[in-house]
Parts: sequence; structure tokens; C-alpha cells
Amino acid sequence: MHAMTKDFLHEAVTARRTSIQPFAASEKVHVAGSRPDIRVPMRKISQSDTPIAQGAESNPPVYVYDTSGPYTDPALDVDLRQGLPALRETWIRERGDVEELSGPSSRYGQSRQADAELAALRFEHIRKPLRAKAGANVTQMHYARRGIITPEMEFIAIRENQRLDALSEILTAQHPGESFGAAIPKLITPEFVRDEIARGRAIIPNNINHPESEPMIIGRNFLVKINCNLGNSAVTSSIEEEVEKMLWAIRWGGDTVMDLSTGKNIHETREWIIRNSPVPIGTVPIYQALEKVNGKAEELTWEIFRDTLIEQAEQGVDYFTIHAGIRLPFIPLTARRMTGIVSRGGSIMAKWCLAHHKESFLYTHFEDICEIMKAYDVAFSLGDGLRPGSIADANDAAQFAELRTLGELTQVAWKHDVQVMIEGPGHVPMHMIKANMEEQLKHCHEAPFYTLGPLTTDIAPGYDHITSAIGAALIGWYGTAMLCYVTPKEHLGLPNKQDVRDGIIAYKIAAHAADLGKGHPGAQARDNALSKARFEFRWQDQFNLSLDPEKALEFHDETLPQEGAKLAHFCSMCGPHFCSMKITQDVRDYARAQGLDEARALAVGMEAKASEFVEAGAEIYHRG
Amino acid sequence: MHAMTKDFLHEAVTARRTSIQPFAASEKVHVAGSRPDIRVPMRKISQSDTPIAQGAESNPPVYVYDTSGPYTDPALDVDLRQGLPALRETWIRERGDVEELSGPSSRYGQSRQADAELAALRFEHIRKPLRAKAGANVTQMHYARRGIITPEMEFIAIRENQRLDALSEILTAQHPGESFGAAIPKLITPEFVRDEIARGRAIIPNNINHPESEPMIIGRNFLVKINCNLGNSAVTSSIEEEVEKMLWAIRWGGDTVMDLSTGKNIHETREWIIRNSPVPIGTVPIYQALEKVNGKAEELTWEIFRDTLIEQAEQGVDYFTIHAGIRLPFIPLTARRMTGIVSRGGSIMAKWCLAHHKESFLYTHFEDICEIMKAYDVAFSLGDGLRPGSIADANDAAQFAELRTLGELTQVAWKHDVQVMIEGPGHVPMHMIKANMEEQLKHCHEAPFYTLGPLTTDIAPGYDHITSAIGAALIGWYGTAMLCYVTPKEHLGLPNKQDVRDGIIAYKIAAHAADLGKGHPGAQARDNALSKARFEFRWQDQFNLSLDPEKALEFHDETLPQEGAKLAHFCSMCGPHFCSMKITQDVRDYARAQGLDEARALAVGMEAKASEFVEAGAEIYHRG
Repeated sequence: MHAMTKDFLHEAVTARRTSIQPFAASEKVHVAGSRPDIRVPMRKISQSDTPIAQGAESNPPVYVYDTSGPYTDPALDVDLRQGLPALRETWIRERGDVEELSGPSSRYGQSRQADAELAALRFEHIRKPLRAKAGANVTQMHYARRGIITPEMEFIAIRENQRLDALSEILTAQHPGESFGAAIPKLITPEFVRDEIARGRAIIPNNINHPESEPMIIGRNFLVKINCNLGNSAVTSSIEEEVEKMLWAIRWGGDTVMDLSTGKNIHETREWIIRNSPVPIGTVPIYQALEKVNGKAEELTWEIFRDTLIEQAEQGVDYFTIHAGIRLPFIPLTARRMTGIVSRGGSIMAKWCLAHHKESFLYTHFEDICEIMKAYDVAFSLGDGLRPGSIADANDAAQFAELRTLGELTQVAWKHDVQVMIEGPGHVPMHMIKANMEEQLKHCHEAPFYTLGPLTTDIAPGYDHITSAIGAALIGWYGTAMLCYVTPKEHLGLPNKQDVRDGIIAYKIAAHAADLGKGHPGAQARDNALSKARFEFRWQDQFNLSLDPEKALEFHDETLPQEGAKLAHFCSMCGPHFCSMKITQDVRDYARAQGLDEARALAVGMEAKASEFVEAGAEIYHRG
Repeated sequence: MHAMTKDFLHEAVTARRTSIQPFAASEKVHVAGSRPDIRVPMRKISQSDTPIAQGAESNPPVYVYDTSGPYTDPALDVDLRQGLPALRETWIRERGDVEELSGPSSRYGQSRQADAELAALRFEHIRKPLRAKAGANVTQMHYARRGIITPEMEFIAIRENQRLDALSEILTAQHPGESFGAAIPKLITPEFVRDEIARGRAIIPNNINHPESEPMIIGRNFLVKINCNLGNSAVTSSIEEEVEKMLWAIRWGGDTVMDLSTGKNIHETREWIIRNSPVPIGTVPIYQALEKVNGKAEELTWEIFRDTLIEQAEQGVDYFTIHAGIRLPFIPLTARRMTGIVSRGGSIMAKWCLAHHKESFLYTHFEDICEIMKAYDVAFSLGDGLRPGSIADANDAAQFAELRTLGELTQVAWKHDVQVMIEGPGHVPMHMIKANMEEQLKHCHEAPFYTLGPLTTDIAPGYDHITSAIGAALIGWYGTAMLCYVTPKEHLGLPNKQDVRDGIIAYKIAAHAADLGKGHPGAQARDNALSKARFEFRWQDQFNLSLDPEKALEFHDETLPQEGAKLAHFCSMCGPHFCSMKITQDVRDYARAQGLDEARALAVGMEAKASEFVEAGAEIYHRG
């Protein structure tokens, strides 16, 4: 089945470059940092001029956060068989705290490397793994706490797009004649990034063995991020599909990707994904550990799990979901639940705990895990194995008992300067969402929260991207730093490409709605540009500025396919005869003639008069 | 173009009955009220038993609110050319306050009736219109304020499904052997309905000339409702399409339908829709009035508008959007907006006001309009013609000036015992939504709020059912009584059937999420039933209980099409090898063996211990 993988990938390069080609009117630009190798990618969306009748104003380009990586850079010709350029390699090596190993140090990694039968599947340009020198700690938190601003932190400060005034200067220099928009009061500086990392309020997931990644940050004082889950299952899928899904996910705006693959060749699949991924990759290592014991949870051991962590850390996984908060006494608290334990990792660990009648090795070896994490800078995503799987189970004793334990483990991890985020639910009705955020902030010491939805009702399978986008927007607004997407296939089947796109767009909406709600500086610039384009009937600009330009164009063309309609000064809702937007010019003329201030004064006067009118029984106009 | 309408409808009856046939495992049942002609429709969803391995328990049917009307009643054979049975006719006539007219009293209605060329288009069984006798007032508010509980109010009390204990008895009697579920503490009685109507906190839109309608209520102490807009435009559409869209809308759960048609034959289209609609129909009469003056807003007059109101009231329109809050001095307040006036009705009236430089006839003749409303029991939907059309314009001076005027007009309408709801925005970021609800409650004296979304960002054309479902869920949770749906085609084109379905489901989700958030008694029953079915791998029950059973089945079958998979005790996400749900039986056995209380005690103890452990630096497990 997999023998054709590399040929397939070779042949598919062209096709894939089509599927990740830049959106219309978009161009990859880079903003320079303090050193030449800090080049922060952004997507520049050009706009057309305001029509002559409406003022013929020139409209500046809009710069948006760009997750698509080098694939959309026409200056680079990415070959999936080679992998991406190692953007961060210099930064990692110049710190002088890593050593290059001769090969994988995990037994499993070694055995896969030695297996001749896997040659046909294997990514061909595997680097030798890096690891912290003995006694060293290579986490961004460790640097941050020592006052060091890394290139990664500076990259992020620029990328978060809040230094719009500074950015404006840089971009203006690069693109003379363009104005970048109004100055933004609040600045995100590299020092602010460092401070947030040092406090544990934000994380930068970037394993030293994933130098291809473009640094990004997860924390509530930054843009809300979204994660996309990929992964085959025992039932379906192949390496090439998974790589293609990753490329597809970053094209639509996925900030991180979790590879949840199960099955025979997950080691090789993961290598292909990481080598070609410009975004951080997360995994749930217990899934692979379980494969190694043929699915028998009770046969899992610390040694197997440890080897799996090292195997994956040396491949470059950026964050690990670790379900260390499932403690033996919490498990019976789920017995009376409507839907028991729905987290797969959670149920694996629960099964192990019950079988052995003791605390899990994730909990008892938590400090050992920290030692591994800090040797590669893998971040914890402390898993919520006891998250509610239904509205009925939301915010119950099991869930909150685990959350408090995650808070305790956070402090253990921080003792090692290991970066931590906390996973959250799940299924939660609207009125119970805020408590999740509040409890998390309180018990987890402001470590970033990373939630799955939450779904706000159970009654819409087939539309859980929507049931959960509502909850995600809400919890994002309350302060959740990253939202794990849910596709329309949730609870029903495995997502295909269309489902992935639908899930991502729903979550980009939720994240952006939350950014607006939080008053994130600069977030509204894109809304304003799009609304201005809409108002001026610049149809093509409206499509180009949208989260899914292709869908917007397709929908428009269903009603008015003629090319001329995209130049028309009317829309299909009202037709050419009367359009609500045409009236505004009259209003402006009127206001100008009257003087707007006069009109305001009049409004106040009229309101007072209207009250009188009502109080008097509105008799002037009485029918009689 | 329309000559074939009736033939088409004739031929399409069979096809249409397919498109509105009952969902799988669903059956129309009626709950009897205090008199034999109060028969409240509900949809009964049957469930299969819990599998033997999990306890072989029998699962009671779930009863859900049913908007689909007699079409899903196998006892009735609806012929669209005949229209629906006049369910409420006896109730209306027995009150003794109406008179039957010899024919339409509007000049326009008379001219359409007299036009021989329209015969081919015309609905054939038009009743003679009813009107309040001279001096009478036939509004539900008028009855409520006199202490009268109408059959409509009792019907609603049963329909709102909060009298689950009473309902349980009735249903148990009808279906011996079925238990209906737990008793619900809070009762909605007919007296409560009456009181809410009398206070103006809720409305029952049901024109005496729409006796086919099944009474429903809009108010914040009841289930959140959704409205679906239909309507052709100058660009496209026909009568048969509009009727079909209405049927389609009520199949998926539309609580009311607004007919926003423009164009030549809107009078005839409306007749077909009303005669076949079991849900209230709303319109924006100014749209038709504008057609009558060939689209020239400045040529509109009170006389033309008045004739249009009477024309539509005598056809049976249940609520009118009236943009009487657009006052001359407010219009210049929109001059500096990003997107000006985006409401079509709003811009028509603004244009009129500017052209004449005076207050609109809607405002100056507001009491005259009340006189018409109370003669037919048409409810006001006071339009927000100055609603924001972009995030940038949210909650601005123009919007709130109009809102306060709507509050004043509400009091005028209530003086006439005319029912009122208030329309709301629009485009509003999350953090500014609550103020809309608070201002509305404060200035509009608790009249029900009816909002369009709001959209929480402008950047996702093609997905505005989602951008707005987020806002709709939020404002519904805060207290909005009815949510006007937005389809994916918003801003881009006219919705087709698929878009209508997508828009409705997104809004059923928002409304239900809000009901759960508000703690509406009984709302969670369906979530619980579905989650229990999911947990027990009763796939078919999970599909049947969902808002869109057909989509859920279709998605499941994409991954696991075999019929056997629907009986399988695993899902496609985890595969047959290991499944998170299978673990729970082990947990339950364990908890039973331990005694759950013991486990709880242990949990508390362990947590305390865990804290100590962390405080002590977790040295027990230190790597050393």
C-alpha cells in the first residue's frame, strides 16, 4: 500500500503546489527583524482603488498573518522529498547548548532506521537529531527566565502584527508609496514576548529538531490560535493523504497541526509531516505507545512510553499531549456520567490505572518526562482525559479534579523551565463555559488554555463545527489561547479535505471573533477593509480579503456568474433597481449641506421632543 | 413565466410531499388541550433499546417541538392548491368581534382580484377577509389584558413543552407503556402565557386572516425562535420556488417565515404562501409599496402605504416590519459610517425623508398604523433601519437613537393593545453584543427582541451563517426572543435550498444553545437522549435525534457505509481496535466494587496528598 508513497509525492508536487498556491491578489512578503535571518512572513492582499464615483481613493494593501509557510513563496521551490529549509537551525546551534547525536537514541527510532523494508516509505533526508548538552536546558522558557530574547521571540513580536506602527515603517520602506494604516497604541515588543514566556502565560512550541518551523506563540495576550487534528485511523488513510491534509490545513490558516495517526507506519508518516511542516506539530504519544503493545492498555510501561517520547522528540514533535492528570481516585468519579470517559488518551490511562490499581506512570514519572521535554524543548499540552463528552457531564467533579491536578503538574514542569499549556473541554453549555476559564486561570496559574470547542449542544451531529465554534468563540473571548478545531464529521467519521476546510474556517471565525471581542489591536483592520470594499462594491477585493476567497467568489457566481456583475454597483439581494448602499451618498450630501454637528444637535432636540410627544399620547397624529 | 404555476404545483405535490416527509423514526402526535379542537402537534422520535450488553434498557421516545405543520401528518392529505385547514377559524369567530368583508377592502387587493390576466396565477380558494367589527380590537394582547386566556394561549402553553409533567400524563394516556421522562419543576401555564402577552413581554403573531397558523409565541421566557427569510428579487425566482422554500424552511425548523419578495406578482405569491403556511408570515410592506411607485422612494405616500398594509393584513400577514424609528435627524448620524445605511427598508425611508425634508409617514401616521394592526391582529416588528452593516458601525449613535425611538413607539402601540417586537442588529463584535440587549430591555420596556444574527466579524463572506450563529447564540442567551437566520450566501447572492437548510440548522443550534444557556426547563432532554444513544452506540437513534438526521447519516456513511457499521460498537475515529467508550463499563465495575462513596472520599484525600507532593517538590518520584 505504501510502496508508491515517494513516487506519489514526487508526482503530486505539481498538483499539490496547485492546492497550496497563493490566494488571488495575495503576495508573500517578509518583514525584517534586527538580523538578516529574521524574516517574518506575511500575506499582503492588494486592493483596487475606490471607484471614481465614490472618490477614486487608493486603498492600501492589507497584511495578514500567514501560516502557509514557504509553499506560497514564489522565490522558493519546495520539494516535499527534500523537506523545508531549516529556518531556525542557526539560532538553535549558535546558542551553543545542543549536541548532535549520531542517530536516534530511542530504541524504536533505531529499529525503524535499521528496517530495510521501510526504505521505500522513509523520508530520505533525515537529519541527525539534536539534544541538549548534559546539564543544559534548551527551552524558550529557560532562556526567557534568564532574560534572553531569542530570535524566535523577536520573530513572534513582529508576527503578532501588533507593532503596526513599527511595521508600517518597515513595510513602507520595503514598498514605498503604500501607507499601512493607522498607528496602533499598544505595542507587542520582543521584551513583552519574553516576559510572557518567562511567566508561563504563553508558550512557543518549537522543538530544536523541528528547525523548519516558523515561530508562533500561544498565549492569551496574543492572537487566538487554532489547531487542526490530522491523522489516519485503523480504518483508513495513508502517508500521502496525511501530508496533503497538513498542507491543506496550513493553507486555510491552521496555526498548529496535531498528528493523531494510529496504525503501522506512524513513525514514517510523522517524519514526512514534520520535515514539510512550517507550523508546530503536536502528538499524543500514548497512541503510538499503545500500538507498540498491540492495543493492550494494561501492557503499557514507563519504559515503552519513555522510548516513544524520545523517539518523537528526536523527530521534532513540538508539543506532547500528556494525560498525567488522570489519577486513580478520579476515575470512579466518571462512573455515573452520561458518557463516561470520552478522551481516547484518557480511557487508555484509566484502563491502565484500573488494571494495575495504581497511579499511572505518567503521573509517577512526571519529572522524568520533564527531563526529556527540556532536552529538546518539547512543550507540554497537559491532556484533559476526563473532559465531559456531553452537556450532561459538563463541569463535573471528575473534570475539575483533573484540572486541579494539571495545575499542580504545571508547577512541577515550570520548576524545570518546561513550557506548558492546559487542555480543556469538550461539551459545555454556554452558561457553564466561563467557569472553565476561571477555574483554569485560578488553578493552572495562567498557563495558556487550549480547548476542544467546546460544543454548546449535543443535538447537531454533522454540524459540530458550528455547535463548537459558538463555544470556541466564547471561551476564546474569555481568554483561551488556542482552539482545537472540530470538523463537521465529529462523532460521525473521519474528515475529508472539505471537512478540514470547513472546520478550519469555522475556527478562524471563532478565533477572529474572539480577537475582536478582546480588543486585540489591529484585529479589526481586516474587517474594516472588507466592509469598505463591500460598501464600495469592490467585489473582487471583498472576496480577496475574506477568510475563504474561493468560496466567496463561488457563491457570488452562483447568482451572478457574469464577469460584469463583479463590477456592478448593485448586489444580487436587491438587484439593479434599488440598492440600500446607493442611498448613502445622498445622506452624506445632506449631512454636508446641513453640517453634521447641526444634525447631531437636532437629533438630541428631536429625541427630547419625541418623548414629550409620546407622553402627551401622541395626539397630534391621532386619527380622531 | 408564471402561467404554469398551478400546474407545476399540482404536479409537484407528490415530489413536495417527499421533500417534507417525516424524518425517520418520527411520528406526528397531538397533545389535547381543554377542548377537543386544541390539538398541539409534536414530533415523537422513537428510540431503540439499549443493547443487551449494556443493560437492555428501554429508551422512551423523545417529543420535540414541531414546525412542519400538517404536511407531516399522515392522517391529512394536503393539496397545495386547496391550502391548509383553517385550524383557528372557530376560535376567531366565536369571540364575536370580527366581521366578514365581501372582498378585499384595499384598492390594490381589489384591482388584483379584478385582473383576469392573473387568473392562471391566482390561488383559487381565497377566503373573504375578516376584520374587527367597528370599535373592536382583536389582538391577543387586548384579550390578555382583559384577563382572557384564548385557545391560542393554551395551545402555546402546551406547545412550549415545559408542562412536561402534565404532558407526561397526557402522553402516557395516549401511548400506554411509555414513560415521558422526569417531571420538570417550572410550569408554563396558559395563565403565564396570558400574563406575558399582557405585559408585552411576548407576542403571538397570528392574524385573524391566517387561521391556518399553529399558534406560537415569541418572548424571552419561552423557547428561542428562529425566522427564515424567503423571497425572490428582481434578479431571479418564481411563485413555486417561494412556496417550496417555505415548505423546506418549516421542515427544518423555521418558526416564522418572512416573505421578502419583490417584483411583479408578490401579491399572488404571498397568497399561495400564507394559505399553505402553518407558521406565521412576516413581511416588510414598504418593499411592495415601493414597487407600486416603480421604485422611486420619494414618490411613496401614506395613502399607498396604508393601502398596502390593508392589502397584506387582509391576506393574513402575521407581522409587519415597520421602519418607523428612522427619524429625519438621525439620518445624518450615518454619514460618517463605514457602511452607511444597509437596511433596505431603512434606506428607502431615509431617501424619502431626505427628499421631502420631513419626518416619514411611518412616524407621523404611527397611530393610524396601530388602528390597522388591531383590526386584524397584525404584530409590529419595529424595524431597525439604522442597524450597523459592519463591525466598525456597531452600537453607534444612529443605531441607539433609533432604538430609543422604537421604545417610544412601543408604548404608543401598547396604548392600542397592539403586539410589538423590536428588531436588532446586524454586525456587532462579541464584547458589544450585551449592550444591545441591555439597551433594548431598558428602552423598549421588555418588548421581545428579534435580531439578525448579529454577525461577529465581517471577514467571512460565504460563512456568515457561522459568523452570525455565534452572535445569535450569545444574544439569545442574553434574552433575545427570536433570531433571524443568515444563510451562507449573505452578502453574496440569493440562497438556494441547500443554503436555507444550512442557515436554519445553524440557527436551530444557536437557539438551542441559548435555551440550554438560559436553563430552559426540558431543553436538555434531547441532548441527554442523543448523548446516551451515542454512548451506547445506538447509531440510528443518534441520527434520528439530531437536528438534521439526514446529514448525520450521510456523514457517517461516508466513512463506514456498510449497514453493519451502524450496529457496530465502535466508531470510525478510533476503529474497532480500541475505543474510549468501551472503557466505561470497566470503570463502572470498578466503582461498584470499591463503592463510589469510598472513591469520592479517596479523591478528596488524594488531592490533598497531591498538593503536599507538589509542595514537597515531588521528590518521591524525582529522577535523582
